Amino acid sequence: MLPNNAPSRTDLAATQLIDFIRRKNLRPGQRLPNEQELTTLLNVSRSTLREAVRQLVARNILVVRQGSGTYVSDQKGIPEDPLGLTFIEKGPKLASDLVDLRLMIEPAIASSAAQRITPSQKAKLTELCNNLIQKLDSEESYVEADALFHCYIAECSGNSVLQNLMPTITTSVHVFIQESADHFRDRSSQEHRCILEAICRNDPLGAQYAMINHLSVVRDYFARQEYMLKLVWNNR
Amino acid sequence: MLPNNAPSRTDLAATQLIDFIRRKNLRPGQRLPNEQELTTLLNVSRSTLREAVRQLVARNILVVRQGSGTYVSDQKGIPEDPLGLTFIEKGPKLASDLVDLRLMIEPAIASSAAQRITPSQKAKLTELCNNLIQKLDSEESYVEADALFHCYIAECSGNSVLQNLMPTITTSVHVFIQESADHFRDRSSQEHRCILEAICRNDPLGAQYAMINHLSVVRDYFARQEYMLKLVWNNR
Repeated sequence: MLPNNAPSRTDLAATQLIDFIRRKNLRPGQRLPNEQELTTLLNVSRSTLREAVRQLVARNILVVRQGSGTYVSDQKGIPEDPLGLTFIEKGPKLASDLVDLRLMIEPAIASSAAQRITPSQKAKLTELCNNLIQKLDSEESYVEADALFHCYIAECSGNSVLQNLMPTITTSVHVFIQESADHFRDRSSQEHRCILEAICRNDPLGAQYAMINHLSVVRDYFARQEYMLKLVWNNR
Repeated sequence: MLPNNAPSRTDLAATQLIDFIRRKNLRPGQRLPNEQELTTLLNVSRSTLREAVRQLVARNILVVRQGSGTYVSDQKGIPEDPLGLTFIEKGPKLASDLVDLRLMIEPAIASSAAQRITPSQKAKLTELCNNLIQKLDSEESYVEADALFHCYIAECSGNSVLQNLMPTITTSVHVFIQESADHFRDRSSQEHRCILEAICRNDPLGAQYAMINHLSVVRDYFARQEYMLKLVWNNR
């Protein structure tokens, strides 16, 4: 028989582990007690504990470093495919749907960041922007550096939910934007510089419009692609 | 030793299963071939297949009905805690952060739904709204009915990403809104009726403002709670 959906001993042990991390206020990167201590603390068998750890690794809550131990994951339990895009057909429609979501939230995030950013956050955001621009100018892949810049703005916004949502959106975007990234390379340095400067001079409206300006170029590209595909399809 | 993070036989079998579902274009609710056929198709052992199925059940991609078989899940692979809120402290700050996210996306979703809604979708949305209002009037819990109404608007918007994101947001909201729900009961019928009518008369701006009006009441409630807590804290 294949497994059923009732909560198993493993599920219960996983819940106990989460409670333990919360109670002890363990932060990302901190190590859990070793296997023997945990089996005693949670009063479970070794095999149940291992299954539970495996489950929490799959949920990005824990990470196991071979020969070193089990740690709280830096990914804060954010799943691989939080938006359930596994089964949505890839193409310009998905791309423009994702950009539409970004246009709904990122201008507001930039505005909020401009109101709350601290001096040390300004320094870090500037560094991330410089790093991105260097990648843009040197023809290297800038996708990762771009994600770090946009996610850090969400962190500066002070909104705990958006901080977690942004990495999931940038990850999803990268699934398919890789190929088209070179199309945006030329204008991108200037656009990112504008966003950075507006946030750092504590100008919420300026930051909001700089973000709209940046993302609407991307939106335009995919919306035109989608439109062209429809034209081709209708003329067959 | 605790498990490591390298892709195992189980992970590979799970990927094969996902490819199989995609290739055959199996929809939510459709049944997979039985265990014996699957082990042959994927060329894996029975125990590896079972582990892989267990993993995809945990990822809400498959569901096992005891004595009936394995099916594609209605949850479309959307995870339990997509926003990684397991480790964010519950309270008015999290509540108002979530409402801020809703205020960023739901007015735009309502506007888009008003432009694209079909006659049969209008009928269904009206039914969901009537059901919600009936719950509001009869002092029953309306949290579920409220979620269905808001999620269906996202479906009418035609944006595939928002369709998947909305259920994750309403689920998250319900974790803590349950207690405060009665506070919003009185005005809620009228507010939802306004949203419904604007969408059904294909009035994008009207739908947008009706949604802002509805959500800003919720925002105001939590923002005031957060502010009061700060005052109490500072006066101790």
